[in-house]
Amino acid sequence: MDWLKDDERLDYLLAENLRIIQSPTVFSFSLDAVLLARFAYVPIQKGQVLDLCSGNGVIPLLLSGRTRANVTGVEIQERLYNMAVRSILLNGLDDQIQMIHGDLKEMPSILGHAVYDVITCNPPYFQTLSKEVQNQNYYFALARHEITCTLEDVISVSAKLVKPGGKVALVHRPARLMDILMLLRHYKLEPKRLRFVYPKEGKEANMILVEGMKDANPDLKILPPLYIYTNENEYTEEVRELLYGKQ
Amino acid sequence: MDWLKDDERLDYLLAENLRIIQSPTVFSFSLDAVLLARFAYVPIQKGQVLDLCSGNGVIPLLLSGRTRANVTGVEIQERLYNMAVRSILLNGLDDQIQMIHGDLKEMPSILGHAVYDVITCNPPYFQTLSKEVQNQNYYFALARHEITCTLEDVISVSAKLVKPGGKVALVHRPARLMDILMLLRHYKLEPKRLRFVYPKEGKEANMILVEGMKDANPDLKILPPLYIYTNENEYTEEVRELLYGKQ
Repeated sequence: MDWLKDDERLDYLLAENLRIIQSPTVFSFSLDAVLLARFAYVPIQKGQVLDLCSGNGVIPLLLSGRTRANVTGVEIQERLYNMAVRSILLNGLDDQIQMIHGDLKEMPSILGHAVYDVITCNPPYFQTLSKEVQNQNYYFALARHEITCTLEDVISVSAKLVKPGGKVALVHRPARLMDILMLLRHYKLEPKRLRFVYPKEGKEANMILVEGMKDANPDLKILPPLYIYTNENEYTEEVRELLYGKQ
Repeated sequence: MDWLKDDERLDYLLAENLRIIQSPTVFSFSLDAVLLARFAYVPIQKGQVLDLCSGNGVIPLLLSGRTRANVTGVEIQERLYNMAVRSILLNGLDDQIQMIHGDLKEMPSILGHAVYDVITCNPPYFQTLSKEVQNQNYYFALARHEITCTLEDVISVSAKLVKPGGKVALVHRPARLMDILMLLRHYKLEPKRLRFVYPKEGKEANMILVEGMKDANPDLKILPPLYIYTNENEYTEEVRELLYGKQ
């Protein structure tokens, strides 16, 4: 099998000793996905995990290193879905990870209600304003803007798919924290864990990791902050370990 | 004038070079109040500032070191109100700071609507459950539990008293973050700045500082974390400076 197409390249997920197919013009995973894959609670031995807006499958691949549960990824863009399928095969993980090519909004009717123990999603970050301000590259635009789904779509769909007591973990930007918390509570995914990610000490947070639990009681924990860079502009020890594993 | 009554003592607000009357059996200010007094935005030259649940007046006293604006404190407990009045006189600040003995819920009809540039409040933290679980000491119980006012009272009253574009700053516990954010948005005090206070590195946050702005657009900033203690269990440099001033 010819693993790579066009300008695709094979990158390492070093900490997990896995390979992933990426393309600079279509999509490459970001640190956000890595942080979410580590932040999310996952059952160790068994269960059903779902990753929405899965892109090239980076989160399912990363989660496979932390759980023996079945992991399903959903991606609407055929090109990215196709890259994810090939990466899963390449790593011999097709027994554990399945990809679905489709619109997440249709998943509750396809996959059923109250099915998953854990749902993860690294959704498009930017609210769609106008065609002008959207990224020129169509693949990037779909992945980065709320074109095919809004934040409310992600949360309302997750609320249907997750079991009572099951968890939904998201990564997003601090400017949307209010919306995320209010939508999570509105759809009965009570926020339970919140972690702020700071580029470095003394700076404002530029990323949030949040986990809601279906039908749970209010009791929100604010986890210790996560810093990306040291004052010397190198990855902090925590981030190096997430990316490269324990050295 | 005999400044002290019963078991009261005269403590220092070192960074401000002020004295404050406290009583171990009635009420002593906490670090929470100091952090709120530093977190809150205040106009430097002029304006109207209001402090609700003012206790022995610690926040008005601390704010007087940061602003020339007029500061009003509201306290429902006569004993604490009385201590605050004496502390203000003792420091010669009665031209700048006034205390009102009354229920904050009556303040909009007494003081008027849309009057204040900034409102601060270090409200009672614990939701009232039963007479049994409330602190045995009546003075402590009033100050610590939501007996005379609920979180919603504080926020709804602040929303009436503050000017459009004015700011309301609160300190509270992380477990109430969801309630605070939702109540602030509900009463059109859009959350703009949020700072988490951690006892030390690697621990969960145990305090939140939050500022809402009346009728403002959504745009929430997550400030750098504040740590209270170093790993050697000493105050961090930032906290030392807040408490004792620049050494």
